[in-house]
Amino acid sequence: MAIITLTTDLGSKDFYQAALKGGILSILPTANIVDITHEVPSFNISYAAFVLKNSYPYFPKNTVHLIGIDSVYNEKTKYVALRYRDHFFVGADNGIFSLLFDEKPDEIVELNIMQDLKYLHFPLVDIFVKAAIHLAKGGKLKDIGIPANDIEQRMLLHPVIERDIIRGSVIYIDTFCNVITNITKDLFTKIQRNRDFTLYFRKSETITQLSWHYNEVPEGEKLCLFGISNHLEIAINKGKASGLLGLHLSDIVRVEFHP
Amino acid sequence: MAIITLTTDLGSKDFYQAALKGGILSILPTANIVDITHEVPSFNISYAAFVLKNSYPYFPKNTVHLIGIDSVYNEKTKYVALRYRDHFFVGADNGIFSLLFDEKPDEIVELNIMQDLKYLHFPLVDIFVKAAIHLAKGGKLKDIGIPANDIEQRMLLHPVIERDIIRGSVIYIDTFCNVITNITKDLFTKIQRNRDFTLYFRKSETITQLSWHYNEVPEGEKLCLFGISNHLEIAINKGKASGLLGLHLSDIVRVEFHP
Amino acid sequence: MAIITLTTDLGSKDFYQAALKGGILSILPTANIVDITHEVPSFNISYAAFVLKNSYPYFPKNTVHLIGIDSVYNEKTKYVALRYRDHFFVGADNGIFSLLFDEKPDEIVELNIMQDLKYLHFPLVDIFVKAAIHLAKGGKLKDIGIPANDIEQRMLLHPVIERDIIRGSVIYIDTFCNVITNITKDLFTKIQRNRDFTLYFRKSETITQLSWHYNEVPEGEKLCLFGISNHLEIAINKGKASGLLGLHLSDIVRVEFHP
Repeated sequence: MAIITLTTDLGSKDFYQAALKGGILSILPTANIVDITHEVPSFNISYAAFVLKNSYPYFPKNTVHLIGIDSVYNEKTKYVALRYRDHFFVGADNGIFSLLFDEKPDEIVELNIMQDLKYLHFPLVDIFVKAAIHLAKGGKLKDIGIPANDIEQRMLLHPVIERDIIRGSVIYIDTFCNVITNITKDLFTKIQRNRDFTLYFRKSETITQLSWHYNEVPEGEKLCLFGISNHLEIAINKGKASGLLGLHLSDIVRVEFHP
Repeated sequence: MAIITLTTDLGSKDFYQAALKGGILSILPTANIVDITHEVPSFNISYAAFVLKNSYPYFPKNTVHLIGIDSVYNEKTKYVALRYRDHFFVGADNGIFSLLFDEKPDEIVELNIMQDLKYLHFPLVDIFVKAAIHLAKGGKLKDIGIPANDIEQRMLLHPVIERDIIRGSVIYIDTFCNVITNITKDLFTKIQRNRDFTLYFRKSETITQLSWHYNEVPEGEKLCLFGISNHLEIAINKGKASGLLGLHLSDIVRVEFHP
Repeated sequence: MAIITLTTDLGSKDFYQAALKGGILSILPTANIVDITHEVPSFNISYAAFVLKNSYPYFPKNTVHLIGIDSVYNEKTKYVALRYRDHFFVGADNGIFSLLFDEKPDEIVELNIMQDLKYLHFPLVDIFVKAAIHLAKGGKLKDIGIPANDIEQRMLLHPVIERDIIRGSVIYIDTFCNVITNITKDLFTKIQRNRDFTLYFRKSETITQLSWHYNEVPEGEKLCLFGISNHLEIAINKGKASGLLGLHLSDIVRVEFHP
């Protein structure tokens, strides 16, 4: 049974999400539709990229991921389908794909299954669904579009490294109010070289231990760890870190490795 | 695989929605259950009607739509199942069906599959599920109820036309805070006869152009267009129109066509 | 098609829930995954137990219920799978199972399908999914764990009975703001012996009639009834009882049966 996942900012109180699912089932009644999330803040492609990047690898190969964020027609944005590490993705080439992948996709096509995109009101249903179903049924990318060389680039704020210091920032706050930074485990490990460290944030907060689990400190105490996303997280055991520590999106954090 | 959609005000934090799905799967384990929405404000049948009216046509023919809003037993309200444009609907005849359909349904039955409705605690599971599954399996309406002639009428606030003016009102505000009115594209086009127009709302706001896409004005500017629902919408390109323009449910809008 | 239900506090805006579903579908692509709820307040096992206890019996026998609440590894908590009334449950033995069942489970095993639990970051995917799929495919409990004798006990606040008085408390407030107490229909009936009663709550509110349906009193008036959960509920016909009556979680209610 072909799997099609959905990542959108459509919410769950309106008719848009249901219309999208009905549109899929009308063409492919056996499709297995899985919601990644529909709670992406409106038009927030970096949020959507973070969520999808951390969940798509759990799905079986050949899953088709339909992305419906910021996809209203405009002359500059292409609608694309692409293959990356044996997964397929369909959406508007508004920069989200450059945030989603670490390397260039294996194959990219600009969708040409519709003549006149200009008057589409609901590209998710009118064009993305058709492309996704074609791929879910095992169809080839080249049969739904013209080969393209690259995707639109959007810059993510990367951590800055200065000798023994990593300066990063908060990129995501989850349902548990854990504070997730843009410092990955790979980067941390590479600069650390087994040295001790101090993590600084806000005016004078520090953490000097890396935990493996949220419950390695007493309840209510702060900790840092590499969470499921493999990004450095600041958390409080059974507490809401972002609120209690006053940490917000884009706040700066600093890791200093000791000599 | 038979599709049964659900439109309810049950929310997603309680056990009610899960019990409903379990009830369906206990009788028909292969049912494909699709949520239209469970976020209808409690008892709000016009909200539910707007959402379902705009999504059910996207589903395949013979889909069964179970409606669980305001369906507690009372002596005056019948439980019904009906067919409309090759879709099936099951619910309490509390007026919602008159808001959902433009014409009289093709076939209506008052459900008689249970002897004593009076002591039902959970009509969604105890009776609607049974009716929905009967229909989803291809069963006939007449085998689960007594033919009925008509459905309960509930009046929708329709726009008022005075010569070259349409007076409408705000009937829905979506996740993006787009403001949707009760003025349909058909009505607008019929009165417009290719003339210019001014849309008035609040004290002194006006819009004089009809856009096709949300992004045809600069970001942050207001526009009006016919959205996916084919209703006149007031929106702000990448902004939250209802908040920024101070528009609320039931607010009056006025379209004047120029001589 | 094997059914696996999910009860978690993962919310629906992050990647965790999607990763969990992808993890299931990667091993068992035909699994029918049904959300009980993902809106359990973080770590709130009594909330989760109430929701699952009232919904699992609606599902077909042999359904597997995966519980992902408060399941971070620690040395004292076992990961278990068990059978109760022909349903299967998988989760952390943190006390939730004692709140979920009225009697001892029919069979309990401590999961031993992983060597070193200590470094698991995502036990829901890394171990619960594997156990759930084994059971969903008809596998035996003894093949995934070591028999265990009992589950961790957690005390629920039970009502106190003093002669003709039941003292209970508010344990749940639902989407409709109905106020659900820990007084069950069985207990009430047993103490009542057909006598009249007065239900007292807050300073001076009283109800002396038991309704069968929410709409047996005029709109806006308070009532009490045994809801779908068979617990004594305080509600307002088409109104939000918890807010209007000032009732909160853990508030005391008192039923006095008249001599």
